[in-house]
Amino acid sequence: MTDLTLFATQGTCALATMIALEEAGARYTTRAIDFAREEQRAPAYLAVNPRGRVPALVTPEGVLTETPALLVYVAQLFPEAALAPLGDPFRFARMQEFNAFICATLHVAHSHRMRGYRWADDAAAIAAMQRKVPVNIAACFGFIERGLLEGPWVLGERYSVADGYLLNMALFMPGDGVGPAHFPRVADHMARMLQRPAVQRARAREAAL
Amino acid sequence: MTDLTLFATQGTCALATMIALEEAGARYTTRAIDFAREEQRAPAYLAVNPRGRVPALVTPEGVLTETPALLVYVAQLFPEAALAPLGDPFRFARMQEFNAFICATLHVAHSHRMRGYRWADDAAAIAAMQRKVPVNIAACFGFIERGLLEGPWVLGERYSVADGYLLNMALFMPGDGVGPAHFPRVADHMARMLQRPAVQRARAREAAL
Repeated sequence: MTDLTLFATQGTCALATMIALEEAGARYTTRAIDFAREEQRAPAYLAVNPRGRVPALVTPEGVLTETPALLVYVAQLFPEAALAPLGDPFRFARMQEFNAFICATLHVAHSHRMRGYRWADDAAAIAAMQRKVPVNIAACFGFIERGLLEGPWVLGERYSVADGYLLNMALFMPGDGVGPAHFPRVADHMARMLQRPAVQRARAREAAL
Repeated sequence: MTDLTLFATQGTCALATMIALEEAGARYTTRAIDFAREEQRAPAYLAVNPRGRVPALVTPEGVLTETPALLVYVAQLFPEAALAPLGDPFRFARMQEFNAFICATLHVAHSHRMRGYRWADDAAAIAAMQRKVPVNIAACFGFIERGLLEGPWVLGERYSVADGYLLNMALFMPGDGVGPAHFPRVADHMARMLQRPAVQRARAREAAL
């Protein structure tokens, strides 16, 4: 399976899927979507993903979107990389729980800083949302620090695609006004992640988008 | 596997998991969490789910939360019910994409009507979010109507746990100020869902919470 093309943008959750692909040793092509030029809303990209979001993964069977779906897809496509507890329904659900918490709670909390226009039209309301972002991001990382991150990896001794998703979000923390040092287990996880060759390759590819 | 207990509340996304459990023919116990009495924030429930949300599923191996995780867990626990394309990575990812879109975009849009306090502290901002809910909910159902719902079921000819999740959200539409009649394929899906015996049993159990 080499016909994979990932549409991605720097500083977005596309990094999580790039980390998964690198950990899997997958061959894939990247295509940059430039938010500054609003390429995510241009007809050419809406033909790929009508919802105008990144990432989108073009596969031989069709286009897939939504990070939790892409992460498991990569893990299933490259089972020899052992990136998810595919044979254990409970542990798999634990990973899915983590990924769903990130996409529906943590990432959504983050999005209220830069993309409050999604949920309200007036400037005062958007500013009010921005003010609450540090509190919400800190609360989310509190849940991770105190329980969701089993340690040393998200799923304990077993590394998985959830770890790349956590790093992806942890890298957003300073911009969201939260210091990783307040969450020592998360900070330790981040430091170990940044030493992994696959993570370094993924970040280099992200930087080159 | 009969030792399953679902913590649930009427009018929440717990219905989707109840539908999955009923379709699977699972034996399970329900425990009601009364939002009017703020039981979701009481120590007894925070010991089950520290994040204070429903649903939570108590299994012999531990507690699981987050609807997309629970739906796949039920499908994997009862494979004979064929509630997910477990053997096909692409189709499974398609289902996961749908579930992630619901939990991170549609359900989040819905939550801005009743729970705007999560993302801003002042009343004017919360009111501004409420005003945008009908537009956002209609946009989400537009994506479902025009593509995500393959028809007749979410995954085409194959019924899956995603169908219960869609019904769950479609039942919220009138409260969110959107008429299902504007989305005829969604309305047709809803009508067929409401005729399924498992859905009727799940709704009866929800009503009895």
